Amino acid sequence: MDLVDGFLQRISDCNVGLEELPTLMPFLIEGKEVGKMKPGFVDHLRRFPDTFVVDGLGPSGRVSLAPQLDSCDKRSAKVAEVLSALRAEGHISGWRDELYPVVPSFQHPPLLLVERAAATHLGIKAYGIHVNGFVRQAGGGLALWVARRSLTKPNWPGKLDHIVAGGQPHGLSCRENVEKECGEEAGIPPQLAATARPVGAVSYLTISATGYKPDVLFCYDLELPPDFVPTPQDGEVSDFSLKPVDEVAELVATTTEFKTNCCLVIIDFLIRHGYLTPEQPGYLQLVAGLRSGDCS
Amino acid sequence: MDLVDGFLQRISDCNVGLEELPTLMPFLIEGKEVGKMKPGFVDHLRRFPDTFVVDGLGPSGRVSLAPQLDSCDKRSAKVAEVLSALRAEGHISGWRDELYPVVPSFQHPPLLLVERAAATHLGIKAYGIHVNGFVRQAGGGLALWVARRSLTKPNWPGKLDHIVAGGQPHGLSCRENVEKECGEEAGIPPQLAATARPVGAVSYLTISATGYKPDVLFCYDLELPPDFVPTPQDGEVSDFSLKPVDEVAELVATTTEFKTNCCLVIIDFLIRHGYLTPEQPGYLQLVAGLRSGDCS
Repeated sequence: MDLVDGFLQRISDCNVGLEELPTLMPFLIEGKEVGKMKPGFVDHLRRFPDTFVVDGLGPSGRVSLAPQLDSCDKRSAKVAEVLSALRAEGHISGWRDELYPVVPSFQHPPLLLVERAAATHLGIKAYGIHVNGFVRQAGGGLALWVARRSLTKPNWPGKLDHIVAGGQPHGLSCRENVEKECGEEAGIPPQLAATARPVGAVSYLTISATGYKPDVLFCYDLELPPDFVPTPQDGEVSDFSLKPVDEVAELVATTTEFKTNCCLVIIDFLIRHGYLTPEQPGYLQLVAGLRSGDCS
Repeated sequence: MDLVDGFLQRISDCNVGLEELPTLMPFLIEGKEVGKMKPGFVDHLRRFPDTFVVDGLGPSGRVSLAPQLDSCDKRSAKVAEVLSALRAEGHISGWRDELYPVVPSFQHPPLLLVERAAATHLGIKAYGIHVNGFVRQAGGGLALWVARRSLTKPNWPGKLDHIVAGGQPHGLSCRENVEKECGEEAGIPPQLAATARPVGAVSYLTISATGYKPDVLFCYDLELPPDFVPTPQDGEVSDFSLKPVDEVAELVATTTEFKTNCCLVIIDFLIRHGYLTPEQPGYLQLVAGLRSGDCS
């Protein structure tokens, strides 16, 4: 397999828009940076001075919250009002009714809870879990269960995806989230889901029209029995297929069929399982590139 | 297992002296940076202007090679003369009679070959291979074969080490080096050594009294049959012992018994095999910290 150039391209696809980094305004709570915002979005927030305090202009400025908002609950309530208003005006789309914690780093107690759809606008760190569901084949090779996203999904319709993956919401541990999503997305029974093994994390950094997206994905390996067949449960997946790892690698390297961030988790899988070797030019670029973002 | 603070300390132990970084002088060949040197060592090189060209002072200066040295062979011959002279004067110790390639990044054709003992003085990138030799135990857990370094080794005498590890010399691929060292250090037969699986890399950056050391270690997992017993072959290892992974983890976290850089490879092993979980505070710091150095 010498698909490394393609893999490097997929890593680049996940790390785009970084030239805009110097134009973003830091977002601070309790003096700690928890996000970065585009100037255009900051302008919307200036209209809500009881909630958001904007000091200065551009990258040397900063956004913080009104000092009387001195608890997570108070902040969350007031910020939710602002975000609802901006949603009504059409500035925030893709509402999920799912709360994300706003933190300076993972495991920090949440300083604020916000609707998931606002995460990229506020430029907060977002975390997710991705499960490589694999099967050992008779010849010794591995195969991966791959999901095809439903055509009705608002994001990435029709793209290939992990058997199980999801954002990390407030109030669940990663382990609980993995087991919940295993059941909801693929009909994996709890006893089997419990054997999913945490194997590390990848990170990436995207600056898009919407905003700043510093994502960390926790990676899991779940070995599935050869006779297990996942079944779509909640309409988010149109079908599942079992593909030899070589075929998955080829798809990742030579097409954009996979949802982009899945590619990082699959490349990490290929590295950890010895499908790539240090003899291949670009191996170290892959190892380093998988954690290009803010892995904290 | 909640030994993460200890693991973070071992990562810090490998990444020391970085406050000196701004005082180092870049070393360039063909216009590409291949190393960084301490001002004191640069002063020695000033005495050999037919070989080393020193422009400027301090960090804004640079060290390069005389322009007539326009091939790897010519450079290697002249630089070897200088290094021999400095060795005779006592400025370079620990001569190994082993050539390291000098490169701007791994897999780049060597621009110069130098004696391994001079690597840190010149501040060149050094690469190594570390093999986690593990055994699946009856209860499902893993155990690692651990070497005790001979008390007569010049470096790290008496410390715990991987079953097989070594610097990556000029003229061997990583795979060839793994198989060679498996035989030489532990008596692992070629057919078994050939099953070692590349699983990634870790990197770290040390600035010591000797100089700048940006190291990359390629990690391998080698599953050994329960009845295989490694045997010291070349006097570099005093003995081997098989330790349950929990015991190895405890030793890494709570002692400095292991040669320092082995700790990074073992922590990476613990992460990849699910001995650590995202629920443990510091998990992401570990993931990111394992590749703190220049992973290129």
